[in-house]
Amino acid sequence: MAGKRRAGRRPGHQPTRELILAAAREAFARRGYDATSVREIAAAADVDPALVHHYFGTKEKLFLETVSIPFDPRQYIHLVVEGPREELAERLLTTALGVWDSPSGLAAGALLRGSLTHQTGSELLREFLLKRALEPLCGAIEPDPVLAKWRMNLVATQLMGLAMMRYVLAMEPLASASPEQIVDAIGPNLQRYLTGDLHGA
Amino acid sequence: MAGKRRAGRRPGHQPTRELILAAAREAFARRGYDATSVREIAAAADVDPALVHHYFGTKEKLFLETVSIPFDPRQYIHLVVEGPREELAERLLTTALGVWDSPSGLAAGALLRGSLTHQTGSELLREFLLKRALEPLCGAIEPDPVLAKWRMNLVATQLMGLAMMRYVLAMEPLASASPEQIVDAIGPNLQRYLTGDLHGA
Repeated sequence: MAGKRRAGRRPGHQPTRELILAAAREAFARRGYDATSVREIAAAADVDPALVHHYFGTKEKLFLETVSIPFDPRQYIHLVVEGPREELAERLLTTALGVWDSPSGLAAGALLRGSLTHQTGSELLREFLLKRALEPLCGAIEPDPVLAKWRMNLVATQLMGLAMMRYVLAMEPLASASPEQIVDAIGPNLQRYLTGDLHGA
Repeated sequence: MAGKRRAGRRPGHQPTRELILAAAREAFARRGYDATSVREIAAAADVDPALVHHYFGTKEKLFLETVSIPFDPRQYIHLVVEGPREELAERLLTTALGVWDSPSGLAAGALLRGSLTHQTGSELLREFLLKRALEPLCGAIEPDPVLAKWRMNLVATQLMGLAMMRYVLAMEPLASASPEQIVDAIGPNLQRYLTGDLHGA
């Protein structure tokens, strides 16, 4: 994965592209997917709307790009998978919290909220969680494909619920808890979903 | 209340109140809290907007009333608390799924989505979860108040994540799983949050 090159991306164009992405991320986070137009994003980035379409295609693709930046999970999967199997959940939680709590993850709560306000947003979020984050992860640690799907769904319930409570609803004590406290409290549960006995599932 | 004769509160008016509630529930579920006006709800229920204010006060109070109907948890708390302690999670999950999967809980996913589209909605949801659902439950099973708050937060992450994945994002296999499968898969995790060792927390 490290050797994979992204095509069609000359270095000189990076700043404009990043400018549009930053404007889009802020707009989607503040007003939600549905209420944000490509025209507004272009205005905020001080570029022509045609340039937004040139770089990103549709609004949907632009949105997917903005949610994939703060959490782009593919680069983190090896951080989670490599190491002792019984510490998988600890590594997954530490990695997820590291991204979510970082400056680039600050918009995570707002984006999560925004992506739920519209059917398209929900579908994108589901696709993102399935195809880009949890499917590769669970596929890497569970050889049985049926069980891997169950594990993926269960891991998703726990991580989604954690993100909702800590960032969107900001419920205490979870919102102010340290990553170590969260690993202590939630780690063993997540570990069961990743590698434990799921009974009938 | 039945004996007191106040303006517009005769027993014959009870159906009007229910009519307004049903219209409000449908409108909030379909369009979200923010995009729904009292005027529209009144129109859908074929009553004067003043009557909506008369019965429910503010839009916030009306919204809280609509979300409290499908899941009003206080009547279910004894169903969960009474019985063997080691089966608490099983009873909690079975009860929650029973409400969510029932006709009166059908709007749950839409309401959950709707309540996240606006700050007021998020605050109402948090208040609802804290004060009416999880605080009484965890208070009843955990005497240490600090630990009770942690348990409440952790139970909230799991139940919120389950509701999000099963109803809002409709992720498979979770969306089509039977309550028994969900109890098998999630029950042991929820039981740890309710009564288990939470390490440092």
